[in-house]
Amino acid sequence: MAEVTLSRCRTLASFSEDAGSLRRTYLSPPMRQVHREIAGWLAALGMTTRIDAVGNLRAVYAGTDQSAPCLLIGSHLDTVPNAGFYDGMLGVVLAIALLEALENRKLPYPIEVVGFSEEEGVRFGIPFIGSRALVGRVDEQLLNNQDAAGASVRKAIEDFGLNPAEIPNAVINNDACAYLEFHIEQGPVLENLGRSLGVVETIAGQTRMDLVFTGRANHAGTTPMDLRFDAMAGAAEWITVVEQTAKSIPGLVATVGSVQTMPGATNVIAAEAHLSLDVRHAADNARRRAVEQFVDRAKEISQSRGLAVSSTIRLNQPAVSMDPGLTREVESAIREVGCRPHRMVSGAGHDAMILAERIPCAMIFLRTPGGISHDPAESVYAEDVSKAIECGLQLLDQLASLPSFQPRTLRA
Amino acid sequence: MAEVTLSRCRTLASFSEDAGSLRRTYLSPPMRQVHREIAGWLAALGMTTRIDAVGNLRAVYAGTDQSAPCLLIGSHLDTVPNAGFYDGMLGVVLAIALLEALENRKLPYPIEVVGFSEEEGVRFGIPFIGSRALVGRVDEQLLNNQDAAGASVRKAIEDFGLNPAEIPNAVINNDACAYLEFHIEQGPVLENLGRSLGVVETIAGQTRMDLVFTGRANHAGTTPMDLRFDAMAGAAEWITVVEQTAKSIPGLVATVGSVQTMPGATNVIAAEAHLSLDVRHAADNARRRAVEQFVDRAKEISQSRGLAVSSTIRLNQPAVSMDPGLTREVESAIREVGCRPHRMVSGAGHDAMILAERIPCAMIFLRTPGGISHDPAESVYAEDVSKAIECGLQLLDQLASLPSFQPRTLRA
Repeated sequence: MAEVTLSRCRTLASFSEDAGSLRRTYLSPPMRQVHREIAGWLAALGMTTRIDAVGNLRAVYAGTDQSAPCLLIGSHLDTVPNAGFYDGMLGVVLAIALLEALENRKLPYPIEVVGFSEEEGVRFGIPFIGSRALVGRVDEQLLNNQDAAGASVRKAIEDFGLNPAEIPNAVINNDACAYLEFHIEQGPVLENLGRSLGVVETIAGQTRMDLVFTGRANHAGTTPMDLRFDAMAGAAEWITVVEQTAKSIPGLVATVGSVQTMPGATNVIAAEAHLSLDVRHAADNARRRAVEQFVDRAKEISQSRGLAVSSTIRLNQPAVSMDPGLTREVESAIREVGCRPHRMVSGAGHDAMILAERIPCAMIFLRTPGGISHDPAESVYAEDVSKAIECGLQLLDQLASLPSFQPRTLRA
Repeated sequence: MAEVTLSRCRTLASFSEDAGSLRRTYLSPPMRQVHREIAGWLAALGMTTRIDAVGNLRAVYAGTDQSAPCLLIGSHLDTVPNAGFYDGMLGVVLAIALLEALENRKLPYPIEVVGFSEEEGVRFGIPFIGSRALVGRVDEQLLNNQDAAGASVRKAIEDFGLNPAEIPNAVINNDACAYLEFHIEQGPVLENLGRSLGVVETIAGQTRMDLVFTGRANHAGTTPMDLRFDAMAGAAEWITVVEQTAKSIPGLVATVGSVQTMPGATNVIAAEAHLSLDVRHAADNARRRAVEQFVDRAKEISQSRGLAVSSTIRLNQPAVSMDPGLTREVESAIREVGCRPHRMVSGAGHDAMILAERIPCAMIFLRTPGGISHDPAESVYAEDVSKAIECGLQLLDQLASLPSFQPRTLRA
């Protein structure tokens, strides 16, 4: 079962925008192949797949009682550039493995498998477009954002053959009672503790920004050092400050992952440096203070060099708690299958963070060898996948007895 | 005359790869329009234009004595991205203006107008492909270099409809006796002195390199600061060191003009940072020592951070002296037209630097307002263009009496 799951992840990873490495951004052509492949696996379970208006893959496994509220299980199907094979995909494939492990048994409540279309934020600089749609947070402003090629989110949706006018139909209805997400940890904590599975208590808040340092393009050979307005030199000074500051604040991580110079020629002083900034902390106040500090320092450095700097916030996501009751159920299920659970903070954002606005959510982390993620070397142990399936099955049965999973007729 | 010259530069600037700004790299489609436009101006002078096998535009204005050696006058027709309208183009257009100012008068010696196809090195990271062809320095290795799209120089030549096998025919024959180039200064020196025209004594040597810092991609949210191998953080530290070091060495300029991160996503720690480095100095030893220092510091910084760094030299061009005799003639011509010449070092490389390997060369600089170049704000004063034309005409007559410009029959 674990081997089939891992092999399916590898199959999905073969559908890529890039030759030789995995990149599958929001509504890119290979996403169609992923949908077709998964729909085939779901069809074997008698399930019908639909693609909602923002491109999420959705399919319901019926329960014995049609009036019982629905459990959502899923993760995302998009990737970063040069990605690993398990971030996101594993959670969707594990959901299917769980249903297959039921061996045609029906639970009292239905289960909806969700493969989110967008979580990483690569194409439009805005993450979680897929899960936002389920909580009714895809608005006009979001739809007007443009990718590097100048296409809007709306245009991308239309080009994929979907209808933006139907986005409201993607919102989860009142019968959805909880969301469960399996995901690789993407960090070194579980491995260091020697544990297979972790349960997430809190997802750290995050701020994502774009910064543009602006100076003046000029000839690299004829402009003396003291008469330059070099946007990249200013940006470089700031990047070193960001790194030093982040190291001095416990629990904080800050990353400048994307840097690009304009015009970007060897013999031209950079007129502009375009940078991304990603800041995370479990405490919202600590994160906010750090972001303010980074922006202030960018302004100071720019002023002292005769540069200008502008910054745009792309995401301001507060820390989000998972549902305490569900989290206890997950912990107990992990114990039931002979593992020792570890309660932890997730440094990474996840779709569960968005869905938690509307329904109780829980997340199960699988140990990540070397803590390596967002890299082709990303991996997962087959034994941990087996434990995750066992734990999931155990959890599905536990949930059947919870009051919130009972049919409406019984609850009212 | 000056107004026509400036208007022609603006016309040539309208032929661009980019909408709304000027970028015309080696053998890009708009270069054809430039060739057509210039050929039209030359045809009105009774001159026939040919495009040699590396794409240089060449046309001969006959002299009264066919056995006299030929004076080459020209500059380059390619541009950097987001370029100004005068860097290169002005030198070619001024050559044509000089011939027009002769008003059908023939000089004893012929004049070949040359519009070099490649000087900036943008497309292939190798500058001076055009002038290298005239001195027989376009070899197999150069032809195998690839642009960002994976096309080789050879392929680019073929795609433009030219034949790489004919490159040897581009070499200047023994009858070429000198090269004269008008060019904007691209720096603030003449403006600060309040002079229209300068004469170049030496072209500073330059080294151009590519550096790649390599770390490990990982998740920006889950990887603690102290467990990162962030290629961009290392590169940023190095860029600040390059800037500080360059400021401490008189006469040195060092520029990191191009920076790009891989994979380049907001939420992924950079696995690679690709940087360009451009280093120049009038003294070759000073430049070499600085380059060594920069490479050593890159290695030290990488080592201390667990990164790797590799560097590739793209160009190692020693400082080049212009011909002392010709330079004296230029100085005297500048004085004859009522200007005060200024002898200077050129921080920028020029085609004259390459041709000086084979024939005596001289360069005349035109004042550059604000020292602004490689930028759309690049400009030139009409009065300086007038003075350049006057000075050029004066010079053409002076040269007629030089021994090296006499017909072979008289010289032997």
